Amino acid sequence: MDARPAIVLVSGGLDSATVLALALDEGYAVQALTFDYGQRHDVELQAAAAVCASLCVAPPRVIKLDLRAIGGSALTADIAVPKEGVGEGIPVTYVPARNTLFLSYALAVAEVSGAHDIFIGVNAVDYSGYPDCRPEFIAAFERLSNLATREGVEGRPLRIHAPLINLTKAEIISKGAALGVDYSLTHSCYDPIEGLACGRCDSCRLRRQGFEQAGIKDPTRYSDSA
Amino acid sequence: MDARPAIVLVSGGLDSATVLALALDEGYAVQALTFDYGQRHDVELQAAAAVCASLCVAPPRVIKLDLRAIGGSALTADIAVPKEGVGEGIPVTYVPARNTLFLSYALAVAEVSGAHDIFIGVNAVDYSGYPDCRPEFIAAFERLSNLATREGVEGRPLRIHAPLINLTKAEIISKGAALGVDYSLTHSCYDPIEGLACGRCDSCRLRRQGFEQAGIKDPTRYSDSA
Repeated sequence: MDARPAIVLVSGGLDSATVLALALDEGYAVQALTFDYGQRHDVELQAAAAVCASLCVAPPRVIKLDLRAIGGSALTADIAVPKEGVGEGIPVTYVPARNTLFLSYALAVAEVSGAHDIFIGVNAVDYSGYPDCRPEFIAAFERLSNLATREGVEGRPLRIHAPLINLTKAEIISKGAALGVDYSLTHSCYDPIEGLACGRCDSCRLRRQGFEQAGIKDPTRYSDSA
Repeated sequence: MDARPAIVLVSGGLDSATVLALALDEGYAVQALTFDYGQRHDVELQAAAAVCASLCVAPPRVIKLDLRAIGGSALTADIAVPKEGVGEGIPVTYVPARNTLFLSYALAVAEVSGAHDIFIGVNAVDYSGYPDCRPEFIAAFERLSNLATREGVEGRPLRIHAPLINLTKAEIISKGAALGVDYSLTHSCYDPIEGLACGRCDSCRLRRQGFEQAGIKDPTRYSDSA
């Protein structure tokens, strides 16, 4: 039997690299999808390509969308990225409707390419408090998908897989390391300086702490410990 | 009190022109949003601008997205537009995840601009059977919106208004005519030839029949009766 096709959202970060390895391990024929959305940290796109190459997946399909024209986030507008540690509430790095848009594109690609499985690396444990990373959001999007599309309406349901959603960052790293993910290729920092991770944004802090707690050497080059 | 801001999706078609007039009539401060998605009938974009101008609304914000790169529809790929009449099931003019994508962009714009009301001209009576035009889809998207966004999570809910959803095309036209919509500015045809409506695609057939049933003169210039 042929492998079932799946769309995997690959950002170049640690979480989505792990999801890609998990989907491959489950035997899916993977099509990687990445987004050039005007992000401050567009080094992500090169990382996404490197992650795919290292796991022998075809280069990601790059979808260009201009979230910078919409703005409203420290990642897409001239708003400073906070460096004081993970706080309470939804931070300014939240990008309005980002995961809704990403999953909507994935849904269109899935429907056209005959895939019924979409994988996304959202995580609601060691995360920044983004509303569109929570299990209830993913469940609502899956429900929407099956009302929105020909496939869903005609009884060939789509599934949104978020296999990391209840894992800690350390658990994610341990799982990925066991599957051979090369985390030195991944990029997490929201505000990199000349290719080095800042070490102080929420994303760097969660990543660093994850490697420490997993007891795995962090391969990241941080500018504050260079 | 200042008028409440609202985002109105304006395609240049008959339905969305009516929705725009309804939102204005309800007293909303309207921001029109339109999509350049690689559609076969891109004369729509000029119609959207003309409709806004005629109702004294600022020109629509145009969001560019390349659904042609995704394909899978007679409106965005080299697939012939059917001309034999409205049939059973979902036709090839269905664009995968189109309304999901449009509403996702509207959600992002709404959140950044402080609007909590989004208007869309979908209709599930005299329509082409698209899954993403049904009441259950709109309800699911509203639910998703309030799980996906800062506004929803922090208790300032978003509403998706689909005021035409249960109206016949004739009822829509009567309503719009009463509000002064100039339907000669609107464009419905999926496959126009030199600016003239083909008169035979589903969209032309539904439009023509709507004017007849409403007892209002159809201002459309059809190529088959030119």
